[in-house]
Amino acid sequence: MLEDWLAPKAAALEARGLTRRLHARAADDDLIDLAGNDYLGLSTDSRVIAAAAEAIQRWGTGSTASRLVTGTTALHEELESELAAYAGQESALVFSSGYLANLGVVTALGGPGTLLVSDEHIHASLVDACRLSRSRVEVVPHNDLEAVEKVLAERNEPHAVVMTESVFSVLSDKAPLVDLAAVALDNDALLLVDEAHGLGVTGGGHGSVHASGLAGLDHVVVTMTMSKSMASQGGAVLGPRLLRDHLINRARPFIYDTGLNPAACAAALAALRVLQAEPDRPAAVHAAAARLAAACGVPPSSGAVVSVPMPGPRETVRAAELCLDNGVRVGSFRPPSVPDGISRLRLTANAGLSAADLDRACAVIVDAIGQVS
Amino acid sequence: MLEDWLAPKAAALEARGLTRRLHARAADDDLIDLAGNDYLGLSTDSRVIAAAAEAIQRWGTGSTASRLVTGTTALHEELESELAAYAGQESALVFSSGYLANLGVVTALGGPGTLLVSDEHIHASLVDACRLSRSRVEVVPHNDLEAVEKVLAERNEPHAVVMTESVFSVLSDKAPLVDLAAVALDNDALLLVDEAHGLGVTGGGHGSVHASGLAGLDHVVVTMTMSKSMASQGGAVLGPRLLRDHLINRARPFIYDTGLNPAACAAALAALRVLQAEPDRPAAVHAAAARLAAACGVPPSSGAVVSVPMPGPRETVRAAELCLDNGVRVGSFRPPSVPDGISRLRLTANAGLSAADLDRACAVIVDAIGQVS
Repeated sequence: MLEDWLAPKAAALEARGLTRRLHARAADDDLIDLAGNDYLGLSTDSRVIAAAAEAIQRWGTGSTASRLVTGTTALHEELESELAAYAGQESALVFSSGYLANLGVVTALGGPGTLLVSDEHIHASLVDACRLSRSRVEVVPHNDLEAVEKVLAERNEPHAVVMTESVFSVLSDKAPLVDLAAVALDNDALLLVDEAHGLGVTGGGHGSVHASGLAGLDHVVVTMTMSKSMASQGGAVLGPRLLRDHLINRARPFIYDTGLNPAACAAALAALRVLQAEPDRPAAVHAAAARLAAACGVPPSSGAVVSVPMPGPRETVRAAELCLDNGVRVGSFRPPSVPDGISRLRLTANAGLSAADLDRACAVIVDAIGQVS
Repeated sequence: MLEDWLAPKAAALEARGLTRRLHARAADDDLIDLAGNDYLGLSTDSRVIAAAAEAIQRWGTGSTASRLVTGTTALHEELESELAAYAGQESALVFSSGYLANLGVVTALGGPGTLLVSDEHIHASLVDACRLSRSRVEVVPHNDLEAVEKVLAERNEPHAVVMTESVFSVLSDKAPLVDLAAVALDNDALLLVDEAHGLGVTGGGHGSVHASGLAGLDHVVVTMTMSKSMASQGGAVLGPRLLRDHLINRARPFIYDTGLNPAACAAALAALRVLQAEPDRPAAVHAAAARLAAACGVPPSSGAVVSVPMPGPRETVRAAELCLDNGVRVGSFRPPSVPDGISRLRLTANAGLSAADLDRACAVIVDAIGQVS
């Protein structure tokens, strides 16, 4: 039965050159990695590793239940407290993934009485959160303030949440946070900012909301992931304590999910502490990203990701393969992972790249693009 | 703004005695734990801990990206291969949580051409998956075969998925899997069985689908979590390879989420190997559950969880507090976590409980129930 159902779909994808396959990376390859999201280079930091290993010894390998039962350890509380302080927020609540954090906060605030206003470029997890919320959803053009203002002003719902990303995941451009926050305030709406690509990288690490002077405001909420700059896994919602309490009681992906495992909690906490002890790491990310963007002739990135438009999905895959053959791992975005249908190479800068690695990477990538274009 | 929006909701919950708060557990308490879901007692097993610690050293603390980019390691592949073999399935795909595994498989199979048939007692993650799928959804009475057959036969959609749990999370009763699979086959539908509470516990550990002779059938798909018997975190979908390929290409919570962290992969893999080396562990879970059920005067459980109906939410909380005061940690279900509105004590048996601990726990629980009833 599945054969009749799924095989034609698989064949159609294959014909368009869009089939995705999994490839396991090796632990000990000598590749220059520009594909992973370990922005600060901390996933293999000895201090972060030691903290995670210690947490396993002390707390075990699993959190053992929902955060509401036995899934909350002292590590979760420490991580929440230090994340909130670092981002300038009153509180934080840790989820087992960034995806679930976004689903949790949007569905807990959504419903028939809430309008959701979504930038057309927001991450899949927020798109899914909108669908799941049972709210009316207005998708507005990318970074279009006037469109946001219009739908907020014309709404009948008592509540509204405007959703954006501080640094967008595909194009790596930024949102006009200060203006969006002002529009939200004027229209009695909440601004939700996904800082998955911001925290740890922008604002000296503290994130774009913090750098924009918006941290701690009553109508600005931040979501984040622990799987990029924090070198771990999990997600969090940061904002007023009243919101945190609300999520504990109403966010189904929090209530009905097992808490983040102790190793991941400890790793994120240790990464955050390394970042605070070594505050130059975000600047190293920006410098590497600027170097990659200049080499590829694309505009500077607001974050760690440099996005290089390509002629099509097949050329993108071929260029990435050429890079790999020459010792450089790059990522790629193909439909449906791109908001505008344009396939791209995705180059991720990280703080651990040496100058020699960057030189080498730039040469290999430029050559590969030339060969397929 | 949040104050006006959320404070009245918080007050209403409080007035009904339904406010949930987080309480961190200590690493070194001397409590007898009947609240966590570490069914096989492996979260603190030295072999499982050692495997997780070794994985962190070798692979780092994070998987660093989506499974489609750098988030797949050899550990993920080993875990998938061994899980599939143990459950008698052709393949497995690991997600970063059980919640996301359920969202992923249902949304990837759902849509306007697919009817979803949902038992009224299925887990929140499957309920959310139905909402997210854009399928027509028919909720049928609990374990009602005739109702399932009727909605399948009367559908206009070419495809259909019947969703159930092998052992239900709240009442810990079981689904009529053999009959459901037959009805599904007769009506050209897929049967999706959530084995969150089955795998590791029922069928000698291999799960209820395996025990029912349904493993490996083309129209039966299993989902599971690594956060209970597998002492870790994450989830998986098990079934035909064609389905796995489909999920890699279509399951948004797989594509757009960071892969499960290496420590969690390694812990689940090690737990699975311990279970295979020590196949008596599931029987120890059933024996402990039977002892708890008999002491509380409730019917035997199909799995690890013994569910004890209570007069109301306040009495449930009070009884759990009395148990805690006497050295026994128990869980509780209160609305909205119960399908029938009845608050319950939730007692979780695990393979690590000694006879003396069980005696002590039974005495404390029976006394606490008596005091509040």
